[in-house]
Formats: sequence, C-alpha cells, structure tokens
Amino acid sequence: MKIDVLSLFPDMFSGVFGQSILKKAQEKQAVEFQVLDFREFSTNKHRNVDDYPYGGGAGMVLTPQPLFDAVESLTADQSSKPRIVLLCPQGERFSQEKAEELSKEEHLIFLCGHYEGYDERVREFLVTDEISIGDYILTGGELGAMVVIDAVTRLLPGVLGKEESHLQDSFSTGLLEHPHYTRPADFRGMKVPEVLMSGNHKHIDEWRKKESLRRTYVRRPDLLDKINLSSEEKEWLEEIKQNNTKTT
Amino acid sequence: MKIDVLSLFPDMFSGVFGQSILKKAQEKQAVEFQVLDFREFSTNKHRNVDDYPYGGGAGMVLTPQPLFDAVESLTADQSSKPRIVLLCPQGERFSQEKAEELSKEEHLIFLCGHYEGYDERVREFLVTDEISIGDYILTGGELGAMVVIDAVTRLLPGVLGKEESHLQDSFSTGLLEHPHYTRPADFRGMKVPEVLMSGNHKHIDEWRKKESLRRTYVRRPDLLDKINLSSEEKEWLEEIKQNNTKTT
Repeated sequence: MKIDVLSLFPDMFSGVFGQSILKKAQEKQAVEFQVLDFREFSTNKHRNVDDYPYGGGAGMVLTPQPLFDAVESLTADQSSKPRIVLLCPQGERFSQEKAEELSKEEHLIFLCGHYEGYDERVREFLVTDEISIGDYILTGGELGAMVVIDAVTRLLPGVLGKEESHLQDSFSTGLLEHPHYTRPADFRGMKVPEVLMSGNHKHIDEWRKKESLRRTYVRRPDLLDKINLSSEEKEWLEEIKQNNTKTT
Repeated sequence: MKIDVLSLFPDMFSGVFGQSILKKAQEKQAVEFQVLDFREFSTNKHRNVDDYPYGGGAGMVLTPQPLFDAVESLTADQSSKPRIVLLCPQGERFSQEKAEELSKEEHLIFLCGHYEGYDERVREFLVTDEISIGDYILTGGELGAMVVIDAVTRLLPGVLGKEESHLQDSFSTGLLEHPHYTRPADFRGMKVPEVLMSGNHKHIDEWRKKESLRRTYVRRPDLLDKINLSSEEKEWLEEIKQNNTKTT
C-alpha cells in the first residue's frame, strides 16, 4: 500500500513512522509512506495556503489551490483512484470497520489541515472520505492521520507477527478484554487471583469470559447491544447484573 | 503544567512535541514535557518489561514493577498527587469534557503500553484514569497519549492566540461547523455561494446557522440530542428535515 500525507508540519510524522509496527511495516515493504508539505504547491508568491473567509468572521481558511494541486501531483500518473481522506471534526467517526475498509485500498492520501478549516470545495470536489477520530478538539489533522494510518497498516497482510495478531483477534469478540496478570504472583502484597494459578483450564476460561462480560457491562454497556451472546453468556450477564456492586 | 510520559518508544514523541501548538506551549512555559523509557526502571537483569500471562494464553503482559517504580520516581518528591492516565481500549471514551477536566491539573503522567496489555494491578492500584480515544485498535498507547496531550495543552491559559481561541469557541456550540469559503470566488468553475459575498450580514449569519444545523442533522444527528435549540433553530431544523434530500 502507498500512503501519502499532505501536511504543513511534515516533521511531526518522523518519530511515529520510524518506530514499532509502522517501521516494521515499511521494512517488510507492506507499506510506503511519503509526507509532503502542501505549502510547496502554493502558486501564491508568498507561498500562502490560507486566506480570510468569505462572509467575514474570525479564523483563516485553507485555500483550495495548494491542496488540489498537491493531490493531483500524486495521482497524475495513475490509472487507479486513491482514497483521499480529510481529517476533520465534521467527519464520519473512525472505527475498526472503517480501518478494515481502508486497508483494502492500494493508495491512500491524507489531508491534514490547521486553522479554522478547509475551503468547502476541498470537501465537495476533492476528497472521498472525511474522518474524525473522536469528539475532541485537536490542533490539526496530523494526529488523526497517524491514528488512522496505524490502525490501517496493522491490518495489511504480513505486518503483524503471530503474537500481535492474537491481540487483534482478542478485540474482535466485541467485548472488552478480561484482566491479565503476570509475574510476580505477589507484588508488594497485591496478589494474582488464585484461579489463574490453579491449572484448571475450564475454570480459567470461565473466569476470563465472565470478567470480560462484567467489565463490558460496567464500562461500556453500549457494546453489549451490538453482539450476539450465547445462552451461557446471557445467564452470566444476568448474574453480573444482580451482583453489580463490584466495580470493574 | 508538568506532563510526563512513560513509553517503550520515547522517540515517537519528538516530532509531535517539537511542532505547532505543543512547541509554542513549551516556549511559553505553559507546559513542560518529559518522556521516559520505563524499560530503564526494570530491575530484571535483562531489562524485561513483559512476561507470560498467568492462566496461559497468547500474548505478553506488561509486568507491574517497572511501571510502579517509574511512576514513583516521578512522584517521590511531591506533595500533590498527579493524575496517572493509562491509555487502553477498555478505558473511558475520551471527550472534550475530559480534556477540560485534565487541563485543571498541575501534573499528568501518561502510561503507554504495548503487547497484550497491562498487569491488572497497574490498573487497580497505580492509575487514576483509564482513557480510550476511540473504538479502533492501535499498536500502543503512544498515539492516544499524544491526542490527549494535544487536546489538554490547547486549553492551558496563554497557549492559544486570539485566532486559535475562536476555533475553540466555534466547536462549543455542540453543532458541526458550517462550510467555509475563501478566495478565489471561482476556482476552476467551482463557485462560492453568492450569499457569502452579498455583504448582508443578517443573511450570512442565517445561512451559516442553517448549514451548521443541516450538517449536524445529516452527519451526526446524535449531537442534536445533547443541545438546547432556540425556537428559531427548531423551526429551521424542521425545514431541513423536510428537504432532507440535499447531501451534507
């Protein structure tokens, strides 16, 4: 997959692209990253990329010309159409399903804005997807692009090793994860639950499933509406609801 | 505000902390960032930070010792209690309200994990807050920490200039932003709506409010449940619902 990023702050990306899974994904040639400063595409003599809004008001607006020209420079010699993703608070909420959808593309282009926002013609005539990573205010689209790129790149074939793939799987149950414990069995008087050291795999499995249900019920009951529980899980859930005084 | 980050990949942060608003916030001494590799705190002779899970199963679990010792090294000489934030998929969904709450603290510590997860004793006895930035799978807690840190730092007194503060305000209406346009009035045949160039501020204001309502209704109707609309806005909304064929 080819991933291009258009940003006014290209240096923000080097640390994130140069570490951990994103670094490995490039080494394995599963993905190729390029970050371009779209100011370089401004035909304005001062290389401006923003201007005052029509109709008045505070805040500067990103002009269409540098973004259109930058995207066209990336797509000029291509027959296939890349997905062009705008990071913005008005976008569709990013989700694991969206990450899976984007991971099937050959080429993604991310537009990261700053200031008051983008000229509407960028949204209407240039981009294919508008994404928001959550309902909070960030300085620019860069962190959103990094988040989407990380979530998408993890899904590309060959990127994750066996251990890491397991993690991926454990999320896809739709429930929150059960608690994990590792050594020491007693850390400063804080102990590991005995069932986990019992060697009884049936009991361990049941404990984990119940804890996963309990945690989901307490912290994110909205997730329970989206999944199909087995009849055993439904019974456990009723039990949990009745003993609901226990925290997480 | 003092912000410490504990991570196994400290180099991920330099690009993000060294640019834009986060860079300015440090220059203005509104915030001081420190990123520590918690592997340095491991007392294990191989500097391991993870181990196999009790009860079996795939994936490695972060052991409690390095995280407890790292946090204690940061809090040893303090009378005040910092907020200790764990980034994890099981956490509370991050929101602008949470950013505001955290921005009132003097000291925040972020724990960024990798692998299968944290030993449960870290959650139970060390951290004060568990945060998830959204329902998608990321490689580690680092991007989540950057997102929370950006959202929080923007809210510290003196960090944003006048222009940028306006942006902050424009979000707090609870509606999505209306479209913005800037020069040129005609870009490759794509034109700016005439009302914005009319000079009639009453019309411009009404157009913007309606577009803001329309966009919210079409894209994020859930937000409409959370705000109190004026009787005029309610009328407009009814109008919009009836002409709902128009996109965005």
